[in-house]
Amino acid sequence: MSVARMLTGDRPTGRLHLGHYVGSIVNRVRLHQRYESFFIIADLHMLTTRNRREDIDQVSRNARDMVTDILAAGVDPARATFYLQSAIPEVGDLNTLLQNLVTVPRLERVPSLKEMARDSGKEEMPYGLLGYPVLQAADILCVKGQVVPVGKDNAAHVEVTREIARRFNHLYGEVFPVPELIPSDTPSLVGTDGQHKMSKSRGNSILLSDDPETVRRTVMGMYTDPNRVRADVPGTVEGNPVFAYHDAFNPDREQVADLKGRYRAGRVGDVEVKEKLVVALNRFLDPIRERRARIEADRGLVDQLIVEGTERTRREVRQTVVEVRRAMGLTGAYQQVRRRAERSRRLPTAST
Amino acid sequence: MSVARMLTGDRPTGRLHLGHYVGSIVNRVRLHQRYESFFIIADLHMLTTRNRREDIDQVSRNARDMVTDILAAGVDPARATFYLQSAIPEVGDLNTLLQNLVTVPRLERVPSLKEMARDSGKEEMPYGLLGYPVLQAADILCVKGQVVPVGKDNAAHVEVTREIARRFNHLYGEVFPVPELIPSDTPSLVGTDGQHKMSKSRGNSILLSDDPETVRRTVMGMYTDPNRVRADVPGTVEGNPVFAYHDAFNPDREQVADLKGRYRAGRVGDVEVKEKLVVALNRFLDPIRERRARIEADRGLVDQLIVEGTERTRREVRQTVVEVRRAMGLTGAYQQVRRRAERSRRLPTAST
Repeated sequence: MSVARMLTGDRPTGRLHLGHYVGSIVNRVRLHQRYESFFIIADLHMLTTRNRREDIDQVSRNARDMVTDILAAGVDPARATFYLQSAIPEVGDLNTLLQNLVTVPRLERVPSLKEMARDSGKEEMPYGLLGYPVLQAADILCVKGQVVPVGKDNAAHVEVTREIARRFNHLYGEVFPVPELIPSDTPSLVGTDGQHKMSKSRGNSILLSDDPETVRRTVMGMYTDPNRVRADVPGTVEGNPVFAYHDAFNPDREQVADLKGRYRAGRVGDVEVKEKLVVALNRFLDPIRERRARIEADRGLVDQLIVEGTERTRREVRQTVVEVRRAMGLTGAYQQVRRRAERSRRLPTAST
Repeated sequence: MSVARMLTGDRPTGRLHLGHYVGSIVNRVRLHQRYESFFIIADLHMLTTRNRREDIDQVSRNARDMVTDILAAGVDPARATFYLQSAIPEVGDLNTLLQNLVTVPRLERVPSLKEMARDSGKEEMPYGLLGYPVLQAADILCVKGQVVPVGKDNAAHVEVTREIARRFNHLYGEVFPVPELIPSDTPSLVGTDGQHKMSKSRGNSILLSDDPETVRRTVMGMYTDPNRVRADVPGTVEGNPVFAYHDAFNPDREQVADLKGRYRAGRVGDVEVKEKLVVALNRFLDPIRERRARIEADRGLVDQLIVEGTERTRREVRQTVVEVRRAMGLTGAYQQVRRRAERSRRLPTAST
């Protein structure tokens, strides 16, 4: 039995942070051992909310940074195919062909899209943003992805892919596997401000690529319990981002339990709790830093992986689109016209 | 100064009828003398409302019939490029790239789309149908169309194209001409039932390809004034489809005026009015029939025109998409990755 194929990936909007790690990267590091893995660098998706020229001009650098971060986090380049979405124009063709297989009200029921429009400062939903799940279906189906790891934000998107795949197969014959969702149960990580989900644009993140001193500085400035004006005032652990990070990244469970107990009793200062978090985070990040250093020393490695992965994926996508057009009858429509012209000796017989 | 380029066309849903002739064909016959003309056979647009395999299996025959009808109506094949939309996958790519330049509320304000959804029996608007004007923008802009003849139904669509072209040029630099609309003031032709616009699916049409006997039979069965039970009862000319057709196709204005006068006075039978319409329509259709006979005798001509036109158009579209991707910065994004890999001698220097 052949290995199932997985599709996963991100928009190339910048460096990855601890929230990405907890929410998806750690999962992918585990899953890519088990599946044949495609990692999309989804720049066409980026265009749904950021489509100025200066955004696009950062794609190349962001793509390299993102792939570097993923490899540094532990993905084996021998087991993963990275590709730049926009460099495969056949994805746009497939997207256009799939657009009639889903309705506007169905897409309007996908919860995250309105939020994305709002977060990106759009007063009105761009047509392409409403179609985000259709383009995602094109991404997944163009490589015939069978499994897709999902967080709570994108599970609803991949449900749309499943519906489109079923609808296509029903109308035109079995072409696509209906991909399975692999849900991740990790809650999203709160930012260093304790207010919002960690996100680079909010400036409340710790990057996988931050150096030890930056991590220290960021942690020492973190939001904690605002009612705790002195070390001898009992503090609240719940909803306190410093303890959320201890829970997520400090493997010394006894130390964490001890700190929580003393924090609740007013017997530990914020500085000690934070210092210990700095140590834990830097210990967590050290092996990632070492791998990054090796990757970066291997000049051009990441760029080569992206180019080779894109070329490989493009070959796959071309093959899929040939099947799709054949199943729909579109190839046949043009071939019939051509053959009639050929039979009447109007055109030389073509090999295509 | 070079000649401006015109884009026009139809979905390949069947033979053309007198309503098409009055509404658009006569206009195109006139305009194609003045402009470099692209005639799209818009099968991807057909998919927005009819996407079953049996619909698509009729595209090839319908395409040939439609082009035959257009040529028979007087379009000079030496002055027109006919092409099959679905055979140019780069149109789908361009469609995907343009989707972020228009919003959902903007498209929801296009009046004809809801009607199209209703007419095609869709309870919910397909996502692709809401994007009909975006795909049309891709059609017009992919050949850098400068003029587009419009009827009252599609003027609002082409307004969307103008907005998308302006928005693109503003964001990425001047790539597209903003196409001019050439409005047609012909009212739509009522069907033989006197109730609805002429349309093949309603069975109330007279086809450009109907033979004289079919025209006679259809006209003799036409709806007239329902209150006129006998020839000596005064009748109503207004809203009477028999007189609408006399007005549109009978060049003998005196005869038409005489018939109207006698009809209003109750001094002419329906049969005489209809007999004269049969004569007028057949005289109008005779030269179209003669041209059709010559075209059909020239076996494979129409198929050859479609294949050569599609190949020619595809070359144009490929060139446009290269410009579009370059202007947006997408070509540059991938090239930067590739060049970094090349500079580090990871990849042989490519010529692409």
